[in-house]
Amino acid sequence: MPELRKDPIIGRWVIIATERAKRPDQFSPPPEGPSEGECPFCRGNEQHTPPEIFAIRNGPLSEKNVSDWKVRVVPSIKPMLRIEGELDRRGHGIYDMMNGIGAHEVVIETPEHINNIADLSLEQIDSVFGVYIDRITDLGKDKRFKYVLVFKNHGWAAGGGRIKHSRSQIIATPATPKRVKEELLGARRYFDYHERCIFCDMIKQELELKERLIIDIDGFIAIAPFASRFPFEVWIMPKGHSCDFVALEDRHRRDLAKILKVVLLKLKIGLNDPPFNYIIYTAPFRRPKVGYWKTIEEDYHWHIEIMPRLTRVAGFEWGTGFYICPLPPENAAKFLREVKVEIENTVTV
Amino acid sequence: MPELRKDPIIGRWVIIATERAKRPDQFSPPPEGPSEGECPFCRGNEQHTPPEIFAIRNGPLSEKNVSDWKVRVVPSIKPMLRIEGELDRRGHGIYDMMNGIGAHEVVIETPEHINNIADLSLEQIDSVFGVYIDRITDLGKDKRFKYVLVFKNHGWAAGGGRIKHSRSQIIATPATPKRVKEELLGARRYFDYHERCIFCDMIKQELELKERLIIDIDGFIAIAPFASRFPFEVWIMPKGHSCDFVALEDRHRRDLAKILKVVLLKLKIGLNDPPFNYIIYTAPFRRPKVGYWKTIEEDYHWHIEIMPRLTRVAGFEWGTGFYICPLPPENAAKFLREVKVEIENTVTV
Repeated sequence: MPELRKDPIIGRWVIIATERAKRPDQFSPPPEGPSEGECPFCRGNEQHTPPEIFAIRNGPLSEKNVSDWKVRVVPSIKPMLRIEGELDRRGHGIYDMMNGIGAHEVVIETPEHINNIADLSLEQIDSVFGVYIDRITDLGKDKRFKYVLVFKNHGWAAGGGRIKHSRSQIIATPATPKRVKEELLGARRYFDYHERCIFCDMIKQELELKERLIIDIDGFIAIAPFASRFPFEVWIMPKGHSCDFVALEDRHRRDLAKILKVVLLKLKIGLNDPPFNYIIYTAPFRRPKVGYWKTIEEDYHWHIEIMPRLTRVAGFEWGTGFYICPLPPENAAKFLREVKVEIENTVTV
Repeated sequence: MPELRKDPIIGRWVIIATERAKRPDQFSPPPEGPSEGECPFCRGNEQHTPPEIFAIRNGPLSEKNVSDWKVRVVPSIKPMLRIEGELDRRGHGIYDMMNGIGAHEVVIETPEHINNIADLSLEQIDSVFGVYIDRITDLGKDKRFKYVLVFKNHGWAAGGGRIKHSRSQIIATPATPKRVKEELLGARRYFDYHERCIFCDMIKQELELKERLIIDIDGFIAIAPFASRFPFEVWIMPKGHSCDFVALEDRHRRDLAKILKVVLLKLKIGLNDPPFNYIIYTAPFRRPKVGYWKTIEEDYHWHIEIMPRLTRVAGFEWGTGFYICPLPPENAAKFLREVKVEIENTVTV
């Protein structure tokens, strides 16, 4: 059973993932370069993954775990957290811990052997977002979970696997992650003072100044954030205020698919298919109307953060939480604005 | 002039290092493998570095920037922060920023072309610690600076440079780093409740249980921390309470050199010279006796954190601040206890 252990000094939870435990002598710098066998994520190889949790299928008569699917969700074969059991919060001398209960799912974004989500059709990316929403909603029903994180590791340096088949991951955690808490608190502090959403204010300023704006289409904007941690960091935000990614209406999902595809194609073409992570930040699903969360619907604003991994993170960053970004975000935005991409053979952005 | 920009939501400072700015099209995944020319850090090549800031020399008559030195400190040739100028804190719409004022120095730990500090003599490592203390003390006199961070990036994956000559870095920052603040606050919270230092309590528990203890010699212990973020993470702590690394007495410096050498040799031998970072955490140098810092001398405890970089940090960690450690620290400690090392041809630990 994996364990969740809390750093007693700064309160950071760490997953001690015993299920993936390697023997100590197996740790050595990882071998370079990917290796590939038969891809377990391709259409026809469904038997090589654990049984599916969810899938979007082409026909209503299609059966589970057969090949007629568009997007498929399976449990991780190396889960960071385990779905069965109780949390059993407990002490260990001065330390605090609980069982590593949670969900860890893999979203296979296409039945074709395509590496980068940017190369999927708008319709397919739209379906992937639909699956994210379905899974967050479903996992939210489990009272043991506090937060569901949807993210992608693309490329080896970004933590991606050796198999080059586009997929993302969903993790449900029994504690609200520290970084998410900090963001919720920061947004609330701003709202308490200004009675405005800080993200809405950012969007307004970026649309006025335009120097960090990458693209503004169909109700969404993509910007290089003012305090970018990484070169070419990009945030995608809905221009209309909403704290909740899950509340995204079907008719806007296609627009989100479009801006994500445009941004990721610009990164792919402009920077030679760099490794990247993206993460969806949304309000926690249980939001009582009192205390801590009472204003969250007004003060938080869901968004997607995209982090290309072009630089190494060194001792200074680990030690301080200060990041050093060697490229001003204004230069990054200008560069990305100028990379032209084609979408569905018709639109050029 | 580099800029310090504050993330408006979670309050994290980011250095936008314009002095190191690359053109956007120069970003692409870094080429693999190191390249080496003539080493500017070796004895005899003093003219290849900027003029020295400080040095320990063998003779009292030795002149600056000549070859008769043991440890040498020079300004970074790619400084993250600039020493000249005023902070000029200012707003930019909803955002906050200041000039990137600070110091960025490189400590050349030996005149010989040796890659790993673990391979230096105890006397030499002792001198390196002496230089750290001198530089922190000197930089602390500059009223613009809030904190001085001493750290090492060893190996490419840990952010180290291409030149394999043992060195560390010192950065003075105009804001107390977020991570340091969190640690100070966490330690204070524990002290407020228990009226005991949390680090002293950790040391007591680790010495009793022994399962995460790596070594206990000469007034220092090395442990694998309970909530390790990384496999083989090691903390070195003085057993006697002290908030301040700079207050380390000369007679204890040699003991610190010994435990650091033992731990780093165990990592080098047991894990095939892995990339690692170490960071010295010490109390900020200006500690008024009122308000925020009033108990810092009682509640904080200086220590060194060593982080081997054997795993990749992926989207989940970035997105949440949750770390996933694939190896229980108890296993890591057992493994490191069993790696035998020789110190100065006499002691075997």
